[in-house]
Formats: sequence, C-alpha cells, structure tokens
Amino acid sequence: MHDIKKIDVMEGVLDENDHIAEHVRNHMTHHNVLVVNEMGAPGAGKTTTLKNIIRHLDTKPYVIEGDIESDIDTKNLNELGIETHQINTHGACHLDAPLIEHMTGHIAFEEPGVLFIENIGNLVCPAEFSIGEHIMMLICTVTEGSDKPYKYPLAFEKADVILLNKVDLIPYLDFDEEFFMKGIRALNKDVPVFKVSGKTGEGFEEVAQWLQNKANELSCGE
Amino acid sequence: MHDIKKIDVMEGVLDENDHIAEHVRNHMTHHNVLVVNEMGAPGAGKTTTLKNIIRHLDTKPYVIEGDIESDIDTKNLNELGIETHQINTHGACHLDAPLIEHMTGHIAFEEPGVLFIENIGNLVCPAEFSIGEHIMMLICTVTEGSDKPYKYPLAFEKADVILLNKVDLIPYLDFDEEFFMKGIRALNKDVPVFKVSGKTGEGFEEVAQWLQNKANELSCGE
Repeated sequence: MHDIKKIDVMEGVLDENDHIAEHVRNHMTHHNVLVVNEMGAPGAGKTTTLKNIIRHLDTKPYVIEGDIESDIDTKNLNELGIETHQINTHGACHLDAPLIEHMTGHIAFEEPGVLFIENIGNLVCPAEFSIGEHIMMLICTVTEGSDKPYKYPLAFEKADVILLNKVDLIPYLDFDEEFFMKGIRALNKDVPVFKVSGKTGEGFEEVAQWLQNKANELSCGE
Repeated sequence: MHDIKKIDVMEGVLDENDHIAEHVRNHMTHHNVLVVNEMGAPGAGKTTTLKNIIRHLDTKPYVIEGDIESDIDTKNLNELGIETHQINTHGACHLDAPLIEHMTGHIAFEEPGVLFIENIGNLVCPAEFSIGEHIMMLICTVTEGSDKPYKYPLAFEKADVILLNKVDLIPYLDFDEEFFMKGIRALNKDVPVFKVSGKTGEGFEEVAQWLQNKANELSCGE
C-alpha cells in the first residue's frame, strides 16, 4: 500500500514536470534559443566543457548553473564575461522544469543563441526529468571507467550527444574504449560521441560546430 | 499546496527508513558484523576499493552490491571468492533500509566480520538514506577535482571516513589538496582522510586496519 502511494505521487510529479518542460521548450524555440541540458557525474568537467564549447561558438551563449550549494562556477563564468545565472537546489538531486520555467521567465533573451543548463552532478536522477531542453548532452570521462553505459543506462539512452572527456589521461589508465562504445551502441544506436580534453582543449571545436548546426536548424524552423 | 504534499510524503518516507535502518543496525550488531555503507560518484573506484581493503582484512568480508542495472561487479567479486549478493534498484538512485533489511534477512552471518554495502554511484541521494550502517565510507577521487566538498556537502558532512582515491594521477592533474581539505574540515572537523590508489594499492592497508579496529570495538561492545 505504501509503495503504491509513493509511485502515484512520483508519476504525478513526472507528468506535471513534462507538461511544464514542453512550455519551456516552446518559449525558448520562440526566442530562437537552443536549450542544452548538460548532465554528468560529479567532477566530469561540466563547467570546463561549457567554457571550451563557448570559446568556439558563433552565437550568443547563455548559462544557467545548477548546484546543490555554492556558486563557484557561476562566479567563474561571469568573470569570463559569460552571462550566467545560478540555481541552488539546497539538497535536491536534479533540476526540474518548474525551476527552469521560473528562471527563464526572468532572463531577457534579446538575441538568438544557445542556453546551456548545467545540471546537478549526478548520472541518475537528472536523466528522469526533462527541463525543456532541445538537446541532452552527456559528459562522461575516461577516469570513470568503461563500464558506465552498462551501469547507468538511462542517461546514455536519452543522450542526444555524448562527450568522452579527459582523453589526455588515457595513457595512465586501463580504459577499454571498445567495451565503452559497445555499451553505448546497445542503448543508443546513432548518438554522436566526441572525444575531448578539458586540459588540452582538443575536440571542442567539433562539438561547438555540431551545436551550431542544431541552433541554425532551430532558427530555420526545421 | 503541491509542494507541501511532496514534502510531507518525503518526510514520512525518511522517518520510516530510519526506523528500519535502526532494526538492521541492531540485527548486524547482534551478529558482530560491522556494516560499512560505501558511497561515491560513478567511477570513483568503489569496487576496486573493496577488493583492496578486503585483501588486508583479518576478518570475514561480506558484500552487498547495489547497482541500478547490471551485476558486473558481483560476478567479479564472487570469482575472487568474496561472498557477494546483488541488489538491482532498476532505476532508483540510492539504496534504502527496507532493501537492506530484506537482503540481510536472507544472508547467514555465521562468522563475525565486516559487511560492505556498495551503494549506487551518486554523491547526492545516498547521503540522505541511512541503510543501517555503523560506518559511512565516502570514496572520492583526485580526478573529480578539489571543489567537491563545497558542491556536495551532505556526503562529506555525514562521512565517518573518507578515501581520496586515484592519487597516482596527481602528477597529471591540477588537484588543489589544500582547498579540498579546507572544504572537508569546514563540514567534518575530525573525519579521517586516507589517500589511496586502486592502481598501485597504496594506502589500503591503513584503511583496513582502521576498519578492523572498528570491527573489534563492535565485538567488545564498545
């Protein structure tokens, strides 16, 4: 009985969330702003990835930083001249659509561009909650090991693009790329996978170009 | 209104969980088995850590592996002759006390020892749910970066012991150990922090000795 109640509440929350996410997506499409939901485990290099992509982007970047506590990354990005807004969840393990609806309602999207939303560092819960994104971008790292697609399938299944970060460390690790890619392909046949390094900067130009194309498609109403 | 209902349900779930966790802890104390709740982000090296600690342990090890999907680690540990039991949560982002109560009810704890419970790879949700542990052991890594205590404070605050893993990679990273330790000390003044490497094996003998002492204290009723 107790379990049934819990499931009912959870399903209600997810339905309401998806409904609001659809609103957010329409609102942002109307402004010609591509929304990228950036997911990854703690320490996957999510903020460094944003900096590296934005450096190569030919359109206006907007950022919303999701953190349980702290605004370390927001300060850092604003200092670089990137318009960044902070959401602190104070304990909650993922962002949800109502939080993003509230925040995007307060940002003046005066130019077309790309809105990057850095989700809470967590490979599990954020994958369950749409936040109105057009693109779900998953960051994983060679240091996490090659078995991650097998252990956290939902995030890999839902990703529209996957970045494999910290490839500069491969010489010092036992990373099995074939096993890693086999796990991804079993879940998500065609998702593009880019190899990148936040340390050397390699690979991000290609990612930026891929996102730029998606942003252009949005503006052209495709 | 909606928010108030959600909070009420959550508090009810946590109260019930804590009540069952207390049962589990008493049951395991009665068997002279020290329960270690092992937490860490995806890819922190939780299973490798268990293997390395168990190698140095002078008492019987029992393992419960928590995974969303897959039994890769359980197979691996059983092949090494370590008695390991699998829990798959099929989507859920943390273990809870009812799951552990059910599993421990089916294991014959014929000898005193240490029960390691490897939680779901997640730095957020597992910290909120006691599972009847005597010791909360947090695994973090130098590759995740030195800002983790600031971003995921609850896990660091609740830890009884912290392992900083993958220290063999420090020469290739910009890990700021002073900033990391400052973050921990602000949350958890006296928690022991061990530096370890799953690759070289360094540091685990000391961790095993520390746990052995805790297991001995439990047996002596301290």
